[in-house]
Amino acid sequence: MAPRKQREIFDATLRLLAAKGFDGLTVEGVAEESGVNKTTIYRWWPSKAALLAAALVEAPALDLDVPDTGSLRGDLEELVTAFGRLLTEPPARDVAVAALGAAIHHAEIDAGRFFADRLARERVIFERAVRRGELPESADPMLIVDLLAGAMWIRGVFRGMELKPGFAAEVVGAVLDGVR
Amino acid sequence: MAPRKQREIFDATLRLLAAKGFDGLTVEGVAEESGVNKTTIYRWWPSKAALLAAALVEAPALDLDVPDTGSLRGDLEELVTAFGRLLTEPPARDVAVAALGAAIHHAEIDAGRFFADRLARERVIFERAVRRGELPESADPMLIVDLLAGAMWIRGVFRGMELKPGFAAEVVGAVLDGVR
Repeated sequence: MAPRKQREIFDATLRLLAAKGFDGLTVEGVAEESGVNKTTIYRWWPSKAALLAAALVEAPALDLDVPDTGSLRGDLEELVTAFGRLLTEPPARDVAVAALGAAIHHAEIDAGRFFADRLARERVIFERAVRRGELPESADPMLIVDLLAGAMWIRGVFRGMELKPGFAAEVVGAVLDGVR
Repeated sequence: MAPRKQREIFDATLRLLAAKGFDGLTVEGVAEESGVNKTTIYRWWPSKAALLAAALVEAPALDLDVPDTGSLRGDLEELVTAFGRLLTEPPARDVAVAALGAAIHHAEIDAGRFFADRLARERVIFERAVRRGELPESADPMLIVDLLAGAMWIRGVFRGMELKPGFAAEVVGAVLDGVR
């Protein structure tokens, strides 16, 4: 499928999800919104869950740039700030929170694939940090990412609190330096 | 309302939520399951969201003991292990994940109240640690709790990965000592 067409399908999928929730999302609706024939969509993605899983990984709306600021602290602060914006600022928030929220109830959506894909792209941050001597080789990137992303999720989504400008630096500082 | 009756109403609320999701949860269903008159339930909680918000905070099924092991590290490892079990082991998982998942889509459920209530109970862990000289007075308990709970949530729920026995100690070690 042409990349532009695919992008339109994914955008329509996430737009409908944000507007109507997973139960209101239908392949028919996506076909209508994107102007692509329903049977064509089904040929590529066998179900709306499969379609949403692919959209989660590929959609530009949920993309995070991998920063390269010259330091591990700077890279992680930018990454965490961008993730916080994704979770709390409309319109990205409505898409990201709806998609990840739906994944909790529907294992077929496979949020694990989304997080694995993001971690694969972010590994370069940790490889550079090890080369610069900022991080021991034994450090576990997945643990670091889960702590950082998790704190943003609890604070911004579950507590529903504003993510203040200094919060990303606090979170990164706690994980790099420890809280003691 | 008698505490035993209230407990039965909350248990029925969470049981129905886990079985049918938030959309399938009704005050009528809770009345039937708990043997309490519907109008009585409405007198105490004006909506199913209000009922669920109260159940989240009060239900024994979602209770976490506040440990007192003699050290901050020991206390946090026990707390994090218990939270991980809550998120991944049935039947508690089905209730906790359904309730927190529903809160993402329905702000009236107010997961923030659940987390604020838990933090109020857990503050004693940090006060003891400061008194023992294990933690500077300036340390932020909410930040620590959000990092720990967040990592368990991302790993156990979003990634859907098994929380191995040593994982709680790794998470606590990273937050107390830093990853560098």
